[in-house]
Amino acid sequence: MEVYFDNSSTTKPLDEVIDEVSFGMKEFYGNPSSLHNLGLKSERKLKECRGILAKTINASENEIHFTSGGSEGNNLVLKGLLKSGTHLITTPFEHASILNTIKKLEENNIKVTFLEINEDGKINLEQLKKAITKETVLVSIMHVNNEVGVIQDLKEIGDIIRASSNRTKFHVDAVQSYGKLPIDVKKMNIDFLTVSAHKFHGPKGVGFIYIKNTSSLSPLIEGGSQEFGIRAGTQNISGIMGMALASKISNDNMKKNYEKVFQIKKKFVDKLSNIDNIKINSLLNNDFSPYILNVSFRGVRGEVLLHYLEESGIYVSTGSACSSKERERIGGSYVLKSLGLTKDEISGGIRFSFSDDNDESEIDYVVDILEKGLKFLRRIKK
Amino acid sequence: MEVYFDNSSTTKPLDEVIDEVSFGMKEFYGNPSSLHNLGLKSERKLKECRGILAKTINASENEIHFTSGGSEGNNLVLKGLLKSGTHLITTPFEHASILNTIKKLEENNIKVTFLEINEDGKINLEQLKKAITKETVLVSIMHVNNEVGVIQDLKEIGDIIRASSNRTKFHVDAVQSYGKLPIDVKKMNIDFLTVSAHKFHGPKGVGFIYIKNTSSLSPLIEGGSQEFGIRAGTQNISGIMGMALASKISNDNMKKNYEKVFQIKKKFVDKLSNIDNIKINSLLNNDFSPYILNVSFRGVRGEVLLHYLEESGIYVSTGSACSSKERERIGGSYVLKSLGLTKDEISGGIRFSFSDDNDESEIDYVVDILEKGLKFLRRIKK
Repeated sequence: MEVYFDNSSTTKPLDEVIDEVSFGMKEFYGNPSSLHNLGLKSERKLKECRGILAKTINASENEIHFTSGGSEGNNLVLKGLLKSGTHLITTPFEHASILNTIKKLEENNIKVTFLEINEDGKINLEQLKKAITKETVLVSIMHVNNEVGVIQDLKEIGDIIRASSNRTKFHVDAVQSYGKLPIDVKKMNIDFLTVSAHKFHGPKGVGFIYIKNTSSLSPLIEGGSQEFGIRAGTQNISGIMGMALASKISNDNMKKNYEKVFQIKKKFVDKLSNIDNIKINSLLNNDFSPYILNVSFRGVRGEVLLHYLEESGIYVSTGSACSSKERERIGGSYVLKSLGLTKDEISGGIRFSFSDDNDESEIDYVVDILEKGLKFLRRIKK
Repeated sequence: MEVYFDNSSTTKPLDEVIDEVSFGMKEFYGNPSSLHNLGLKSERKLKECRGILAKTINASENEIHFTSGGSEGNNLVLKGLLKSGTHLITTPFEHASILNTIKKLEENNIKVTFLEINEDGKINLEQLKKAITKETVLVSIMHVNNEVGVIQDLKEIGDIIRASSNRTKFHVDAVQSYGKLPIDVKKMNIDFLTVSAHKFHGPKGVGFIYIKNTSSLSPLIEGGSQEFGIRAGTQNISGIMGMALASKISNDNMKKNYEKVFQIKKKFVDKLSNIDNIKINSLLNNDFSPYILNVSFRGVRGEVLLHYLEESGIYVSTGSACSSKERERIGGSYVLKSLGLTKDEISGGIRFSFSDDNDESEIDYVVDILEKGLKFLRRIKK
C-alpha cells in the first residue's frame, strides 16, 4: 500500500491537468507577444486564464500576474517594494522564501518587526496595531503556516492595516491556503497575494501573484513588457492553462474537499490518542487547516521515523521541503522552535499533509505502522 | 497553407517533448527536496537531466542550474554579479532582458561600456581589449543576435577576456544559438551561459543557466537551497525533462538541421534578388545564423506587411517578441537602429526565422505572397 501524506510539499497533478498542459503545448505554442494570429490566440488564452483565477479571489483579470511559483512571487513583492529605510512587519515562521529574502534586505537597511506568536501560532494583533508606523511599507503574513497549518485571520489583519495607515500594504503568502480556504482580496484588504500551482494539483514551475496596484512595485525580472510590465519573459502558457484548470477544480470543490480532509484529520487525531508521549501541534479546530497535521513524537528523531514509515510506502515530511537543509543545520524545524516546543518535541516533529486524493481508510494503515515504528524506535533508543 | 517563420520568437514543441512532459507530471511529481523515496526519485531525475544538458556544452553536471527561462537567467547574472561601482561591457543590441536590467543597474552606480558594432553587427574586438579595466566584472555578449542573426566569435572574445584580466567574467546569452551552433564553455572561456527551452522545441517557462562558479553570485530568488543555493523554488521537473529531451534531439541533429535551414535561407535570399528596393540585414555567410533572415522592405511598414502575410497563413515578426511594445514607442527596432539603417529601412524590417520544421518548398509560396503584398502595399502608399 502507498500513502502519500506529503501534500504540503507538493501534490500529484490531476489527470485532467496533465491533459490540459499537453493540449496547451500543442495548440497554444504561439508567443503571446507576437503580433500575428498565433500570438493573439495565445494572448487571448492567457486572458481567459487570468479571468478564471481572478474570479476565485474576487479580483479583476488585470490584477493577476503569472510567475514561476511561490518563491518568485514572495521575492517579487519583498524586493520590489522594500527600499532602503522602510519598515516591514512579518512573523518568525514564514516560508524560507520570505525569511531568507528578509535576511538579504536587512543588509540594505530594511527594518523588520517579527510579531510574537502564541503557542498555537496565532499572531498578536495588539502588537500588530502598535507596530505599524509611518515607515511601515508592508505587512507580510502567511495565511496558513506550511508546517503546522495554523490559520491567520486575514480579515482582522486587513482591517487593522486599513485603519492604521494608508501607506502600509498587505501581502499574503497564500501558497498553502489557496483553493482550500476562501479568500476575498477586497473584503480582506489584501494588496498582494502569492499562489503556487503545484500545491493544488497543478503543474510545477508556475504560479501567480495578485497585485492590486503595480505602480509602487519594481520588477524582479526585467526585460519585455509581459505581465503588465511587472514580470518579463515569455509566459508558460501550457503551465498557466494547467494551473487555471486545477484552480477551477479546487475552488469548485472547496467545501466538499474541506469536509473530506477534515474527517481524515479527525480520524487521525482520534487514533493518535492511543499513542503515548506525543504532542499534537495542529489542533482540530477552525484555527487550523485540516490539510495539515503536525505531531511531535517524543523520544524519536523525526527523520528516522520518516524513513521507517517510507519502508511501508508512507510518505511524510519533517517540515517544509524548502527548509530541509536548514533543519539539518539547526537540528529541527524553525517553525516548531518559534512555537516554543522543547528540543525533544522539535526533533520528533512529523508533518502529515493531506489532499482530497487521500481517504479515511489510509489512516488505519498509517497509525498501525506508526505504532509499530514508535515501539521499535523508542526501544532501540534506550 | 500555413507557414510558421517566427521560430526565433518561439518554436513548436516536439510531440516527443509533449509526451515527456506528461510522463514527468505523472511519474515524477514528488518534490525533489523531500527526504523520502518519491523526492529522491525526482532528485535523481533532475541529476540525469543536468547531465544531459551539461554534456552539450562541455560542462559538468553541477554547473547546470535550472531557471524559468532566458529573461530570468539574464537577470540572475547581471543583478547577482554587478555591485555598485563595478563595470560592465556589453553591446547596444542585446535582448531586452539585458538592456532593461542594465537601465535599472545604472541607477545603482554600475558603469557600462556599449561596444561599437559594424554595419553587419560584429563587435569591435580592439575596443573590447581596451575597454577591460580593473573594475570590469563582466562582459555580457549575445552569441546570435535575436533579430538579425549575426554571430559573435565567442572563442576570440573569451581569449581576449582571459588575457586581459582574471577578475572579468564572461556571460553569453545563448538563447538563439543553443542547440543550433556548437558551444564549448571551456574552450570559449565562458563563465555564465543563458539558455531557454522554448527556442529549441522545448516547453515554455523553463531554461537553464551554466554557472562555472557560483561563489561570486547572489541569488535573484531567495528561499530554499534548491539549485545549489543559487535559485530557490521547487523545480519544474516535467518542464526540465521536456527541455533535456528537446536539447538532446536538437544537439544530436545540429549539423543536419543547420544544413537544412541554410538551404532554406539560401533559396529565400536567391529569390529575394528579384524584389526591388530591399536590404538584406542577415547575410548568407558564416557570420550569420542560417536560422534568421532579416530583410528591410523599403516603402512599406513592417507591421502592415506582417498582417498582409498573415492573411495568407504566413507568420513572421518585425523583431523580438519581447520588444514589440518598445518598437511601437520608437517606431521600429532598436537593433536595426544600432546597425545604422535608415528610418525607412528600420520601419520596413521583417524577421523571417526558421527551424528544422520548415521546408524549402515553403519559400516559393512565401515569396509569391510577399511579391503580391509589396506591389499592393507600395502602390497604395503612393
